[in-house]
Amino acid sequence: MNSGQSTSLDPSGLHVVIPAGGAGTRLWPLSRRSHPKFLLDVVGEGVSLLEATILRLAPLAESITIVTGRAHKDAVCAQITRLREGDFLRDDVPIIVVTEPSGRNSMPAIGLAAALIARRYGAGAVVGSFAADHVIREEEAFLRVVSDAVGAARKGYVTTIGIEPRSPATGFGYIDPSEDEVAPGACAVVKFVEKPDAVTAQRYVAQGFLWNAGMFVMRAGVLLGHLQRLSPDMYANLIILAEAWGHLSSCEDEGESPSRENAAVIERVWEDLPAIAIDHAIAEPVAQEGGVAVVAARNIGWSDVGDFDALGTMAPTEGSPRIVAIDSPGSVVRSPEEKVVTIVGIPNAVVIDSGDALLVTTRAHAQRVTAVVEKLAQEGHESLL
Amino acid sequence: MNSGQSTSLDPSGLHVVIPAGGAGTRLWPLSRRSHPKFLLDVVGEGVSLLEATILRLAPLAESITIVTGRAHKDAVCAQITRLREGDFLRDDVPIIVVTEPSGRNSMPAIGLAAALIARRYGAGAVVGSFAADHVIREEEAFLRVVSDAVGAARKGYVTTIGIEPRSPATGFGYIDPSEDEVAPGACAVVKFVEKPDAVTAQRYVAQGFLWNAGMFVMRAGVLLGHLQRLSPDMYANLIILAEAWGHLSSCEDEGESPSRENAAVIERVWEDLPAIAIDHAIAEPVAQEGGVAVVAARNIGWSDVGDFDALGTMAPTEGSPRIVAIDSPGSVVRSPEEKVVTIVGIPNAVVIDSGDALLVTTRAHAQRVTAVVEKLAQEGHESLL
Repeated sequence: MNSGQSTSLDPSGLHVVIPAGGAGTRLWPLSRRSHPKFLLDVVGEGVSLLEATILRLAPLAESITIVTGRAHKDAVCAQITRLREGDFLRDDVPIIVVTEPSGRNSMPAIGLAAALIARRYGAGAVVGSFAADHVIREEEAFLRVVSDAVGAARKGYVTTIGIEPRSPATGFGYIDPSEDEVAPGACAVVKFVEKPDAVTAQRYVAQGFLWNAGMFVMRAGVLLGHLQRLSPDMYANLIILAEAWGHLSSCEDEGESPSRENAAVIERVWEDLPAIAIDHAIAEPVAQEGGVAVVAARNIGWSDVGDFDALGTMAPTEGSPRIVAIDSPGSVVRSPEEKVVTIVGIPNAVVIDSGDALLVTTRAHAQRVTAVVEKLAQEGHESLL
Repeated sequence: MNSGQSTSLDPSGLHVVIPAGGAGTRLWPLSRRSHPKFLLDVVGEGVSLLEATILRLAPLAESITIVTGRAHKDAVCAQITRLREGDFLRDDVPIIVVTEPSGRNSMPAIGLAAALIARRYGAGAVVGSFAADHVIREEEAFLRVVSDAVGAARKGYVTTIGIEPRSPATGFGYIDPSEDEVAPGACAVVKFVEKPDAVTAQRYVAQGFLWNAGMFVMRAGVLLGHLQRLSPDMYANLIILAEAWGHLSSCEDEGESPSRENAAVIERVWEDLPAIAIDHAIAEPVAQEGGVAVVAARNIGWSDVGDFDALGTMAPTEGSPRIVAIDSPGSVVRSPEEKVVTIVGIPNAVVIDSGDALLVTTRAHAQRVTAVVEKLAQEGHESLL
């Protein structure tokens, strides 16, 4: 297993990439187009999920690249400034914000970041991509897992971090690990599988499969080499884009944005990129070739906080003096400070009051909140989306 | 069957008495101590339940006496002024507001009103007592029923209006009518029975029993005569109180309130009155003597709007553009104008947002809202009660 491009650099740290694009519609009405899930402090930790992701990875990071939509650049930069001003971040960790002209799923976002990092730090730089909107409670345990993943990445593997299942969840894809250890703490991956039905999920858990949490660590050159081989058009376009971007721009240096000519190139070439996830573009085909490794993460307190059921597990609301629940255990409530919320006879109720909108459901229906957002869109409630 | 006192007057109309005292805690958080159910437009008709009651009975009324708590006098008078200024009421119908020093259930309220009416209009005046916080949709049908009740009242009967059951409800007392017609449309009552359990309610409905809606029509002298016989102390105190009140005061003539000496009498004597319902004090014992008649009311669209289940039946919320309900038929929603309420997978949900408080339950639990109010009281949320 070798990278497509070799490198003379041996970076001491990790180049963190954070694609920050998901809308998180299943957390509506907290999460909106204008302030999506990653910008919100949904678990009540005093920082947004994006901020928590940055802070969690900063100790290992040589650089941090956030890839987000244009509409969110200002909000993302404001959060970075807040972290800098609060002395939560070392000054020597550069934070780069790359704005996508439009959403193209994770492969173009991570591929462009890898191309930009390779240009600046060399193709041997280890790139780690982590979702902007997940929660990880056990940070030390997590960083040990990431270090193992970096070790496997240095050996040339596309390395993923698989979460040891807490339940036979049907909301995640799974990873089938072999017993073949390819680096300390890392095994080769047999295959990735899609979100299963309930019966299949039981079997996966029994067989020792892991949840796919979408975390990938690999040398920039390894990723780009696989792309060049598997998706040559996308690879070529990403190299053109990285040239046009010219340099990694931080929030501060507005003046150094691409020239008008390059901006037109970016606009045109970006639209040609396919909207595809890194899982399908790289992880699945490369796993078949034996090029993917997985580090199993146990007890890192991970959650994708994907819906209000998951949110209720991560941040229970019982015991608040502003909530009176009668025969309604397990309820998940978010409401304005000054409001008292009372629930009678609805176990696992979900009550989310955002001021302009109110959602009432139960945790069993948490996945169906997407249907509400679709219906509001159909009915023209644009301001609520 | 004769009244205890005879009279030379033959009033052409009805002297309407409206005890306006109930808090309506099962409609919390809409209904509060400071603005109880009868002051609210809970069914969205553009008038409060009290205003609707006044307007409904005005065509038959020779006078209207509202008996309410001191805390609500200003609000009651404001609503009367609104009706007068909007030309909704004939100017020749006097409206009298009597304020109770403290709540003593329905018998003292109706008894005092009857004593005041007898003093001014004579003991032959027909008094009809109607709850301030019920809904009656079919006004013409209702007035025909009331006219029949007035006819039976003129013959000396304590006459009640019984509602033909729509269901074997367990939330009402029932009336057992005989087949013995004592006046046009009116039968003698065999007995009154308390709120039944579900099995008994089925039997009552099969036997043709009627719901007791707490409406009573009788000559003032008949009521006072029964009281004198059955509760001589209360009767004596009510006569003292009516003397001390001196006259029926309307909202306008603040200057004519009782003298300081009389005010002290009222204060002292009122506290001696027992808190008892007219049902127990008069209707039940007099029925045993054959002195009560009932007029059956069919299809008058009556509801006590006693809880959110009843409210949902009277004023369904489906179809509002501000409500998005997915798999949640039969839901009852009240929320601020500008807010969108979304419900997923909770049939018959009850969602009541009053701004400072939010209640979420289902119609099956509607009766348990009282427990919420009790819990809030225990926990010191005084401002929400």
